[in-house]
Amino acid sequence: MEKILRIDMSAEGGPRMTETPLGEYAGMGGRALTSSLVAREVPPLCHPLGAENKLVIAPGLLSGTTSAMSGRLSVGCKSPLTGGIKEANSGGQASQVLARLGYAAVVLEGKPATDDLYKVIINKDGARIEVDNSLKMLPNYDLVEEMKKQYGESIACISIGTAGEMKMSAASIACTDMELRPTRHAGRGGVGAVMGAKRVKVIVLDDTGKKMRPPKDPEKFKDANKRFVEGLRKHPVTGQALPAYGTNVLTNILSEAGGYPTYNFKEGRYVDAHKISGETQAETETARGGQATHGCHRGCVIRCSGVYNDKDGHFLTKQPEYETVWAHGGNCGICDLDAIAMLDFLDDNFGLDTIEMGVTLGVAMDAGILPFGDAEGAIRLIKEVGQGTPLGRILGNGAAVTGKVFGVERVPVVKGQALPAYDPRAVKGIGVTYATSTMGADHTAGYAVATNILKVGGDVDPLKPEGQIELSRNLQIATAAVDSTGMCLFIAFALLDQPDTFQALLDLLNSFHGLNLTGDDVTALGKTILKTERDFNARAGFTSQHDRLPWFFKNELLAPHNATFDISDEDLDQVFNW
Amino acid sequence: MEKILRIDMSAEGGPRMTETPLGEYAGMGGRALTSSLVAREVPPLCHPLGAENKLVIAPGLLSGTTSAMSGRLSVGCKSPLTGGIKEANSGGQASQVLARLGYAAVVLEGKPATDDLYKVIINKDGARIEVDNSLKMLPNYDLVEEMKKQYGESIACISIGTAGEMKMSAASIACTDMELRPTRHAGRGGVGAVMGAKRVKVIVLDDTGKKMRPPKDPEKFKDANKRFVEGLRKHPVTGQALPAYGTNVLTNILSEAGGYPTYNFKEGRYVDAHKISGETQAETETARGGQATHGCHRGCVIRCSGVYNDKDGHFLTKQPEYETVWAHGGNCGICDLDAIAMLDFLDDNFGLDTIEMGVTLGVAMDAGILPFGDAEGAIRLIKEVGQGTPLGRILGNGAAVTGKVFGVERVPVVKGQALPAYDPRAVKGIGVTYATSTMGADHTAGYAVATNILKVGGDVDPLKPEGQIELSRNLQIATAAVDSTGMCLFIAFALLDQPDTFQALLDLLNSFHGLNLTGDDVTALGKTILKTERDFNARAGFTSQHDRLPWFFKNELLAPHNATFDISDEDLDQVFNW
Repeated sequence: MEKILRIDMSAEGGPRMTETPLGEYAGMGGRALTSSLVAREVPPLCHPLGAENKLVIAPGLLSGTTSAMSGRLSVGCKSPLTGGIKEANSGGQASQVLARLGYAAVVLEGKPATDDLYKVIINKDGARIEVDNSLKMLPNYDLVEEMKKQYGESIACISIGTAGEMKMSAASIACTDMELRPTRHAGRGGVGAVMGAKRVKVIVLDDTGKKMRPPKDPEKFKDANKRFVEGLRKHPVTGQALPAYGTNVLTNILSEAGGYPTYNFKEGRYVDAHKISGETQAETETARGGQATHGCHRGCVIRCSGVYNDKDGHFLTKQPEYETVWAHGGNCGICDLDAIAMLDFLDDNFGLDTIEMGVTLGVAMDAGILPFGDAEGAIRLIKEVGQGTPLGRILGNGAAVTGKVFGVERVPVVKGQALPAYDPRAVKGIGVTYATSTMGADHTAGYAVATNILKVGGDVDPLKPEGQIELSRNLQIATAAVDSTGMCLFIAFALLDQPDTFQALLDLLNSFHGLNLTGDDVTALGKTILKTERDFNARAGFTSQHDRLPWFFKNELLAPHNATFDISDEDLDQVFNW
Repeated sequence: MEKILRIDMSAEGGPRMTETPLGEYAGMGGRALTSSLVAREVPPLCHPLGAENKLVIAPGLLSGTTSAMSGRLSVGCKSPLTGGIKEANSGGQASQVLARLGYAAVVLEGKPATDDLYKVIINKDGARIEVDNSLKMLPNYDLVEEMKKQYGESIACISIGTAGEMKMSAASIACTDMELRPTRHAGRGGVGAVMGAKRVKVIVLDDTGKKMRPPKDPEKFKDANKRFVEGLRKHPVTGQALPAYGTNVLTNILSEAGGYPTYNFKEGRYVDAHKISGETQAETETARGGQATHGCHRGCVIRCSGVYNDKDGHFLTKQPEYETVWAHGGNCGICDLDAIAMLDFLDDNFGLDTIEMGVTLGVAMDAGILPFGDAEGAIRLIKEVGQGTPLGRILGNGAAVTGKVFGVERVPVVKGQALPAYDPRAVKGIGVTYATSTMGADHTAGYAVATNILKVGGDVDPLKPEGQIELSRNLQIATAAVDSTGMCLFIAFALLDQPDTFQALLDLLNSFHGLNLTGDDVTALGKTILKTERDFNARAGFTSQHDRLPWFFKNELLAPHNATFDISDEDLDQVFNW
């Protein structure tokens, strides 16, 4: 991770690759690196699909090491969905492999003059880029099969499906998992559209012949990792709930809590929640010979993923995440796990953000395009997105565009990005994060659900405004830092409750890099990242007026608690006033 | 004009009408009234299609009098297209009639709970509102025919077509002309969508039995009007060019000047300009038994409109304006006047802004939906808009949405609103207006073309940055004031060059209202209006970053002058620093 690979797609005579030292980005990884580079090098008012935008793909500070949980990849750019800065985050194998290949980042710059489509191959011998127009409009699964044929089974792929090629604002970037399936996605904010605008279909990584990244102090590193893993195994969320049922363990919990947005955010409890819960999902997976527990990358000890087979026992998709099940499920009044799994597969295959697409379907249902609960209709519509029909193009550009095109008032977005699976009226801490995050509505930017609902890191009543600003602020700061390490965000449950585990993370960073970071340094890093991102957004035209939830959350009561989002604008404006 | 009619569409048991005195809005007309009311009463962050938005329809201070040129109507709201404040302005008969009926404004508030469609009837006996679902999805021409059947030939109509009912962001509000045709439109910013969201299809006005509004000093008023008319007849633009060829006289002039945006703003001169010029248009109209000179409302002495018949001599549409001919013509590479006239008719009939639609077609052509120059394809697409097919819905929401949906980078909009018929690289003064206007890109907000190209009000070189800020500033201030009088903006040519004519306007206002306004007062009024509008926009989240042209105008050279828009951001930020 001592160099950056830059690919200038605008260069005369075809793309030009250069490898540069880290320079001003030395010591940065993941989100710290992507956001710093975007903020410094991308003009905030440029068109997100234009030559001036840059797509930055960066492993974290601990990616490529033997540390557990270090396989997250950050993807940054100016977002076509929000118009602001974006860091989207993915699991899978790519981060570890790219880090072991020695790259702190791959940066796609410029824009080719022709319509040719490119593939990038990076292995121990270096990097190269080639035209391959035979890949045009391949969905992700077919694309990866083709790459396996061409480059063998020891690869990891970072790719876009048809949605990215069509530059849709809901397009994701896929990373392959341990089984070489394109199931893990940097989903949010349309990062796939930016890769599509650069005309790069796939980055094929092969770290054959490369070794694990060596720590400065191997003994201390090994010891820290042991304590870190023990901490994760000890905590009830990361040691029990997530491994057993995956993230979808939250369906019953949120519906019970009255914070499960149902029928496009009209109600807070879903009568059919049990039919699509993590418990039912795990049972179904096991009964069909799939897997209820599975890791998305090597080195994962939480293993919150799984394998979802169809009724005949054939692989259909990876275990759909809670937010995916919610978006296509309760949010659309759909309680059929098989239909939801099919939608998850289609989203992955076309390369679409599952949250954005599910919320978009809910808005389309409110527009009268199809009735709530119409699972077959939902599948048909997502197929239209993959094909790029006019209706598919509308939906593939997300909830805000769909609402605008169909004249719908009830559109749950902040900064143009769809709200995830927690109603801000009944889980007010996450509402503060949705409103104020630099990313648009994003639960992962400051997961106040942990403390509001799961009672991790304290207990802040989800229905009262008190304490939510501070809660969201602290989580947003911590998250920005964690997103820079390459660590899975789910380690935060143990970090918040167990000081020993937090210390183990510090020890991992310090022993690997020869540093002496304290908790205060981590907080300072998080603040610096947020400040950098907010500065970019301000230069892109964002103000405090954009740190607001849609109007209807203030006015419409959410059953069963009959709650509104009653945190004042003045309080929201204090989130970054630390 | 001593009262405001408010119609609360949300009221329990059906819409409730109240007539209130002007109160805090006393002394205001037109844009001053619409912008003040919107800024005071509409929450800046509300959804434009929601119950909290208000649609304000206001005649000007001199509308309904015997003064020449006083038939302009202002329509205000929070815009669904820009998200900011909006005043769209229309000719036709409605303003005079509404003023004589005694209303300073009609305000549509709230939003009905059901899907019923309403009509409002206002005559000497007062106002009433009725459900009439038989009007659903009638285009404007059919609707007006139906209203004539129901209410006779002495009416004027303010209506929406199918686009407004579908709440499209390019939807206009139509006003009937002297021949009771829905040819004059408050076009810009999607005001028709707001009327559609209120579920009001048409406002039928009948001033039978009502008299001209009486001036305080009839003799002085008569004298002032005489001098005013003489001034208009004396000026070469309002006395000769506009009557002879209409606004389309500009086609040859702008193409010659290299500021005629061609092929979606790729070139500044159109090789086929002569085929669609005002001269050719007037000749065609005359040859087919149409009219090359015609007024859009009683009291017009400029008479820049006309009647365009088809090849068989039957009425096809009113004389398409320069901006309409450009948008559907050179901007799309279409040089067929009959096709352009058909597009003008379709836009009027469905209720669409011709500028927004033409620019949208240009973007669609850049997206590869149809080739440049495909007149039949353009007609087919506009028909799809009127029908509300998925593709039609995309296009009907304007250029910005169309660009986003199809992943197009070259989208000529500011604040989401399409640029009109003057390239800002070759007519830099109008570029300053596009960038900084409170309305989004709008040539009428500060028509620097007058001084840059027509050499009215001085001579500022269109290709140099010098002097453009001050030019646009002064014109934006003056325009805001003129838009409050009910006067047609074309009086400005004579006002700028002839101090006597400006004095005649002041005398008209003073003798009618018993005032002692000076030129300074008019300037102060204009500044107050702009300040009010900018304050609303700031509270809606607009910053100086939104006072910018799209990125490509800074980078791409425009032939034949190879010009870019080279006015600095710092200078743009000085426009409202007076």
